[in-house]
Amino acid sequence: MKIDSTFGSMVMEPNLNHTPPKTWRRWLIGNPLLTADAPNQTIGKMIGLAVFASDALSSTAYASQEILIILAYAGTAALGYVFPISLAIVTLMVIVSISYEQTIHAYPGGGGAYIVARDNLGELPAQTAGAALLTDYILTVAVSISSGVAQITSAFPNLYALRVEIAVVLVLFVMTINLRGVKESGITFAIPTYFFVIAMTLTVGIGFFRYLTGTLGTVVNPPEFITDGTIHMITPFLLLHAFSSGTAALTGIEAISNGITAFKEPRSKNAGITLVWMSGILASLFLGISFLIGPIHAVPSEAETVISQLARTVFGGQNFLYLAVIGGTAIILIMAANTAFADFPRLSALHAGDGFLPRQLTFRGSRLVYSRGIMALAGLSCLLIILFQASVTRLIPLYAIGVFLSFTLSQAGMARRWWKSGKLKVDEKIIEPGSVLTYDNRWKFKMIVNGFGAVCTFVVMLVFAITKFKDGAWIIIILVPIMVSIFFSIHHHYKNLAKKLSLQEFHSTNIKRHRVIVLIASVHRGSLAALAYARTLSNDVTSVHVSTDPFESRKVKEKWEYYGEGTRLVVLDSPYRLLIEPVMEYIEKMLSIRQQDEIITVVVPQFVPAHWWENFLHNQTALMLRFGLLFKPGLVIIEVPYQV
Amino acid sequence: MKIDSTFGSMVMEPNLNHTPPKTWRRWLIGNPLLTADAPNQTIGKMIGLAVFASDALSSTAYASQEILIILAYAGTAALGYVFPISLAIVTLMVIVSISYEQTIHAYPGGGGAYIVARDNLGELPAQTAGAALLTDYILTVAVSISSGVAQITSAFPNLYALRVEIAVVLVLFVMTINLRGVKESGITFAIPTYFFVIAMTLTVGIGFFRYLTGTLGTVVNPPEFITDGTIHMITPFLLLHAFSSGTAALTGIEAISNGITAFKEPRSKNAGITLVWMSGILASLFLGISFLIGPIHAVPSEAETVISQLARTVFGGQNFLYLAVIGGTAIILIMAANTAFADFPRLSALHAGDGFLPRQLTFRGSRLVYSRGIMALAGLSCLLIILFQASVTRLIPLYAIGVFLSFTLSQAGMARRWWKSGKLKVDEKIIEPGSVLTYDNRWKFKMIVNGFGAVCTFVVMLVFAITKFKDGAWIIIILVPIMVSIFFSIHHHYKNLAKKLSLQEFHSTNIKRHRVIVLIASVHRGSLAALAYARTLSNDVTSVHVSTDPFESRKVKEKWEYYGEGTRLVVLDSPYRLLIEPVMEYIEKMLSIRQQDEIITVVVPQFVPAHWWENFLHNQTALMLRFGLLFKPGLVIIEVPYQV
Repeated sequence: MKIDSTFGSMVMEPNLNHTPPKTWRRWLIGNPLLTADAPNQTIGKMIGLAVFASDALSSTAYASQEILIILAYAGTAALGYVFPISLAIVTLMVIVSISYEQTIHAYPGGGGAYIVARDNLGELPAQTAGAALLTDYILTVAVSISSGVAQITSAFPNLYALRVEIAVVLVLFVMTINLRGVKESGITFAIPTYFFVIAMTLTVGIGFFRYLTGTLGTVVNPPEFITDGTIHMITPFLLLHAFSSGTAALTGIEAISNGITAFKEPRSKNAGITLVWMSGILASLFLGISFLIGPIHAVPSEAETVISQLARTVFGGQNFLYLAVIGGTAIILIMAANTAFADFPRLSALHAGDGFLPRQLTFRGSRLVYSRGIMALAGLSCLLIILFQASVTRLIPLYAIGVFLSFTLSQAGMARRWWKSGKLKVDEKIIEPGSVLTYDNRWKFKMIVNGFGAVCTFVVMLVFAITKFKDGAWIIIILVPIMVSIFFSIHHHYKNLAKKLSLQEFHSTNIKRHRVIVLIASVHRGSLAALAYARTLSNDVTSVHVSTDPFESRKVKEKWEYYGEGTRLVVLDSPYRLLIEPVMEYIEKMLSIRQQDEIITVVVPQFVPAHWWENFLHNQTALMLRFGLLFKPGLVIIEVPYQV
Repeated sequence: MKIDSTFGSMVMEPNLNHTPPKTWRRWLIGNPLLTADAPNQTIGKMIGLAVFASDALSSTAYASQEILIILAYAGTAALGYVFPISLAIVTLMVIVSISYEQTIHAYPGGGGAYIVARDNLGELPAQTAGAALLTDYILTVAVSISSGVAQITSAFPNLYALRVEIAVVLVLFVMTINLRGVKESGITFAIPTYFFVIAMTLTVGIGFFRYLTGTLGTVVNPPEFITDGTIHMITPFLLLHAFSSGTAALTGIEAISNGITAFKEPRSKNAGITLVWMSGILASLFLGISFLIGPIHAVPSEAETVISQLARTVFGGQNFLYLAVIGGTAIILIMAANTAFADFPRLSALHAGDGFLPRQLTFRGSRLVYSRGIMALAGLSCLLIILFQASVTRLIPLYAIGVFLSFTLSQAGMARRWWKSGKLKVDEKIIEPGSVLTYDNRWKFKMIVNGFGAVCTFVVMLVFAITKFKDGAWIIIILVPIMVSIFFSIHHHYKNLAKKLSLQEFHSTNIKRHRVIVLIASVHRGSLAALAYARTLSNDVTSVHVSTDPFESRKVKEKWEYYGEGTRLVVLDSPYRLLIEPVMEYIEKMLSIRQQDEIITVVVPQFVPAHWWENFLHNQTALMLRFGLLFKPGLVIIEVPYQV
């Protein structure tokens, strides 16, 4: 212990024994890490692509299939629309990518939708974007893991019955890894991501080669077709519905703009180039898959994914190459879930830091990760997986609407930002929490780019909300406003609390009188210990006994003569045998005659039995008093334990 | 308020406002009653019979039927054994009645099995008898209510599907009546009891008349026969099994010996005569029913009770007389359950008073009844009814074994008592808690009577345990020893506690040093209020701050300079961001250097938010410290509330 002379107060040396004990928990999540150990390494474009692309690229595993499923309701004739719809989605993808490329350069410190909306649009849009993103991260985990399990059960159909259990185990596995704290070492991400990209490129490439040479053929033993029994008309609504399902391909595209700080300098440039690469790969694979599933007559099914049908048709059976594709796809989907595990806790900590979520979410656990956020995400996504039976098709209508809401807000925020930039003088600066705003001479063009992105994503969001409303989108449409209003009530609580606790106009008050009341059920070592304690607190001690039995009370009074050390004994008659109520009434009377700067302390003797169950053998008087009197100002309740 | 001059202490006048508020609870169970209101009226033989006989007489509603059900497994040929078996049971009934008649005279203050066993055999047999009786009271409620519902569903078969719900509602109804406190006014008991006796006598009488005149006939449209599909042999085991089922007829026969004090003087004589009457009526009705169900070819069935089959055959259809018999039977069965509601709480209060059950069971609620015992009985019997689907036949194997165990112990105790009596001198007296023991010159004869009773009931108990073992008796055989061992651990706890709390060799200790530790998360009005409070407790105040963030800690130290009123500030560095553990370690260090007669108080500022959910927005430091440090001697934890 050394004396910190600056303040005249003692400072204890860091004591490395303040670590949790070696328990199963420590075995599971690893040894604690020092705060000073927070990692800080930057990555290049190759690794950056691997780290941030898994969420976006993995959506190729289900996006084409989900378009197919909706079109299938209008019979095989409608399946020809898969490719045109995919083209429309890729167009949207290009618009969004260009829009985000601008964000990357404007927010070199990381420009997630929450920060962009907060800086440029205000608190309500920011909280809305945040709520949309948080729900979407939960759905990313549920959808990605479910799709990953669907790949596995496509290859091993006898695992289909266990799909929910497998999905839950995978979520818990990813949770554990994240509780240990992922050192995003890049290489662990690079291998599976590039493996997936190569496997998928090979599948699409060989597929095209065989298509062009006329040797591709169609799916052998196709799985059962999903149908509701009737053939629907091909209506614009149906096509928009299919388009909405396909927009799942865009999820994850914003990841790079959140994580710019991880890139080597020149950060923004490297991040921007990586974004272009990522979008290019994503668009090519998505279009390739969407095209090829036409000629092979792939069938939408819960039993076998379209990827599985494509791979075994291209490679001519369930051989080694087929298994490589399926394995690679399953792994990248699990990594996409892992991305959400990195983003959700970080975003919720950001909310909590701004006072819109419980402060505990900003607390980093022994492994320097936001453990509570990680566990909340795992719990909620498992709940979704169980409720929706790990079905991607049933989860999809909930997905993407939040993504498009956050896209819209983020890009609208950027458009507003360019407009503000245009109003600045050339050498003027506005320093905001998230970035620095200066004059940009291309502000009009940039505003149009982001504004156009905002309008497009807003329209898509509306289309999505309408076409998917009854399939599940209504849940999100109800949930997001509820979450936002909860965020604001939490914020109100913290602001109010801060005001109440503020030391402005604070005058230290001395407590001038301290009245102590000791409850005495009977006279024994326990109650006398409480009395001795009470007498150290104040000279004004009153003992109170509730009399339900005149014989017992007489004994108490007689013993008090001898053991009471001269303190006042007040006996409260309780003709209805009530115990708590007479005490409460007495205390309330004392409180009502309380003076300014007077405090009343109630001392309750409390047995501490050797075994927990023995508590049931005693009246829990202190507990009940605490409940009854918690809200009275000027009152403190003390339990004086007496170890038995 | 007046000063009680004898003891120099103040005594408050009885304050009639100490009543619970006018809530739905008060509406349900009535206004509170004064302790002084405990009723004290005595009853004659006519009313006494009505009050105490419902339990015993009601068993005629199912005893014959249960014999029939077992015999039915051996086909219709076996049904002829119903009457001989009933005769054997009546013989046993006579033996037990004579034995109890002697108990009544020996224990004019009430001679339940628990008291007789406690006075004459010791604690273990007494607790065993008590455990057996308590389980049996629970079963009395479950069996009686289930049988009552079975009578109702016999008359109204479309209610059969709702039998469990009806039974639960009836239990809750009887519970509510008992929570209000039954004034055993006699007349409320007399009307239904005598109504049942008359209706049953009429049924049996007219039945015999029609049998003798050859006009009785057989059951029209008999219900479906219960069978397991195979015809079993008529073996001695089967006959003993049927006999065991029929012994349910003896349950309730001990009721009068428990309640002797309710009788007019000469108490014992009146009670004894009532017992003889009761046994006579019970035996006649039981034998009559058992005889008549032979010629009418009554069929054992879950759908229609034997009583219902007998009544509609005797009265020639489901007419008014039939409904009167069914209604009377249902009501007396519900009253039998009511008897258990009177006895169970009283017996458990007796156990609790002796320190073998939680003391809270001795506490009488606002209506002067043992409310907790009443609610426990209702909960447990509802559980049984739900588990056994309100089936009398499935509950019966659990019933009666406890009764016979308590019969055996009670009569063995009586035999032991006569033996002790024989050893006394003529004018010698032994005063026991339950009665006064004097020399009795007929002690040998009486000892033989009670001893014979004990042997008979013991043998029946063994027969019951063996023949019904796999049907459910095993549950009770396991349960009773477990209960007894729980009773003894509770007793051990209370005895041990009393020793620890005893004031023998007590020397008043003065606390010589009082060290106060205040936990400071940050400096605000809440923590300064806690500091002000702490400073009233002692001059030795140390404030402790856990530093997880150097920036925050610096702010705390700076503010402390100004607001800390010169108290020591100890900063505990927590490099692993733990909050509770460094505090615990610090406190434990302080405790380790604690001197004799020194006490350490930890003061924790605690927000009291306006809404309960706001508690989730704060760390529950005080709660966690309390859990962690509850078992440390010499330590008191105080939460100082700060209303927000």
